[in-house]
Amino acid sequence: MSDRNQRITFARSPRGLPVPEDFGADETAIPAPGPGQFLSRTVYLSLDPYYRNVMKNSQIYQDRLAPGDVMVGETVAEVIESHHADYKPGDIVAVRNGWQQYAVSAGQGVRRIDPSLAPIATALGVLGMPGMTAYAGTVFLAAPLPGQTFVVSACTGPVGCAAGQIARHMGARVVGIAGSKEKCEYAVRALGFEACVNYKDGDLVAALKAACPDGIDVYFDNVGGSTLEAVTRNLAMGARIVLCGMIEAYSMDTPPPGPWLGPIVGARATMKGLVVYDHMHKFSEMQRVLSRWIREGSFTWRDDVTESLSRAPEAFCRLMRGQNFGKALVRVGAEPVIRQ
Amino acid sequence: MSDRNQRITFARSPRGLPVPEDFGADETAIPAPGPGQFLSRTVYLSLDPYYRNVMKNSQIYQDRLAPGDVMVGETVAEVIESHHADYKPGDIVAVRNGWQQYAVSAGQGVRRIDPSLAPIATALGVLGMPGMTAYAGTVFLAAPLPGQTFVVSACTGPVGCAAGQIARHMGARVVGIAGSKEKCEYAVRALGFEACVNYKDGDLVAALKAACPDGIDVYFDNVGGSTLEAVTRNLAMGARIVLCGMIEAYSMDTPPPGPWLGPIVGARATMKGLVVYDHMHKFSEMQRVLSRWIREGSFTWRDDVTESLSRAPEAFCRLMRGQNFGKALVRVGAEPVIRQ
Repeated sequence: MSDRNQRITFARSPRGLPVPEDFGADETAIPAPGPGQFLSRTVYLSLDPYYRNVMKNSQIYQDRLAPGDVMVGETVAEVIESHHADYKPGDIVAVRNGWQQYAVSAGQGVRRIDPSLAPIATALGVLGMPGMTAYAGTVFLAAPLPGQTFVVSACTGPVGCAAGQIARHMGARVVGIAGSKEKCEYAVRALGFEACVNYKDGDLVAALKAACPDGIDVYFDNVGGSTLEAVTRNLAMGARIVLCGMIEAYSMDTPPPGPWLGPIVGARATMKGLVVYDHMHKFSEMQRVLSRWIREGSFTWRDDVTESLSRAPEAFCRLMRGQNFGKALVRVGAEPVIRQ
Repeated sequence: MSDRNQRITFARSPRGLPVPEDFGADETAIPAPGPGQFLSRTVYLSLDPYYRNVMKNSQIYQDRLAPGDVMVGETVAEVIESHHADYKPGDIVAVRNGWQQYAVSAGQGVRRIDPSLAPIATALGVLGMPGMTAYAGTVFLAAPLPGQTFVVSACTGPVGCAAGQIARHMGARVVGIAGSKEKCEYAVRALGFEACVNYKDGDLVAALKAACPDGIDVYFDNVGGSTLEAVTRNLAMGARIVLCGMIEAYSMDTPPPGPWLGPIVGARATMKGLVVYDHMHKFSEMQRVLSRWIREGSFTWRDDVTESLSRAPEAFCRLMRGQNFGKALVRVGAEPVIRQ
């Protein structure tokens, strides 16, 4: 353990897609935990598209960033010193340490991680907020029936892969949308999707029509924009669209228009907005269901791990260009030795 | 009874808003009913915004129009000669006679009208398809709860006035949107709405915020476009939007984009497309409920009647510019004498 705390800071609001120069870096002393606090060292930093929105400093997020502030973010960390009654050194926690090696916490919003369930990094992916997002959107909002066609975009990312596999476990016919041949092959081979369409391959409307000849019963939308538009032109009667993510819009200053709504009326479709925080009371249910499938070998995911905190800005910029392949993580510190 | 049949015909697909020159006029012989047919004389012709879409000759409607064809449309008519077992002279029917004085029918899609329920013109308005549209969207799709804020656009038209009054009868707080001071005053005074916003008065977002301080729980959308956009910026949590009409779009060649969907997600809102034909099995329920309210004096409507078929094109163009005030009708023939 070095005696310094490396941090990545917010430098400025990006214009359009973020670039590494939108971030800064510095070093501080390792903070000391006060009464009722614990100190933890960051093992994994989660990279999530919504950070781009936080960097806009809009008012929809609680976090407001001034230049020089450490970037906010979810992490998995190991408690190394504690004056908090509920946490002791060696505990693994999901905590919002941000983009830095060490942080103190008073325990607010902290979640204890059970390392026996699955690799601890899943607490930032399929067994964390992305998994909960997928579970809520698929099980509670979309509720696909056996045999129905379930389409999910960004389908190899943590939300998309979980949503598609949950739908598959519910008996749906799952068709993914992704941005490369490799991702599409992975979706069919490893995730068990019926088909996967590469949106960079040209006419997405026609490709979806071919992959979904009976129309799309459910669309789990992680991207918005032109992909959503193409889906609306292939809806089955009574289709449900779960609006979850709009990654294209996060890098825009003025929100883009949505799709022409005529096809929504024609298909008697329902569009529903998903906010994961509404469903947190189901978190343990989600973990119980998904971790059982993980143990049984019928649910998988892929991590895209960048080594070292200093490369986090560049990894985040890749994510925002859709160039990650799997859950984007930064390994900030060594994996802890788990004593079972 | 003259021995000629005056007709208004389709001349060409309008460019943008329709103009009277998009229509033609001619005279034919009065047709003779064959076996299993009846002849009726048109009393009222209904003018409905969807005719503008039919005039596009797009494939979403069954009716295809060639230049010189009589314009399609719903009418209330009196049977004057019948070889049909179910209809006899003097019967009042809702029938798709189109824009002409006389037509024969084999009974398909014909609905018998009970003149004791309400004035027969209501069969084209609040007790007809517009009423059914309002009833289905409000009762089955939106389901406002007592005390919730229910907003409806085009609120003095047949769908809007029925939707708002049904919501009021369900205990909701109803706020209308209309395009003139007179319409707004009528909505509050005669329809019993809590408030009505004139969308031509400037900042609609702010006006809705003032009229709906707790946000909009239900929006019954008859217009789409910028009005829908303004509503999305005032949604209450869990809001429902019923997509029913998009009058702005009917006069466009390329469908316009929809609203930015971010607020739908933020409000956990649901948008649902309404197609009235899905709900026709509830038609008698709708008539029973609404006609009781009419008898009790707690449900009203307004007709905007244009005298004589020859003025139908100009009345239709007014309707598409939002210049009607109430259900747009053309009186094609004299009111029948009803023998009770």
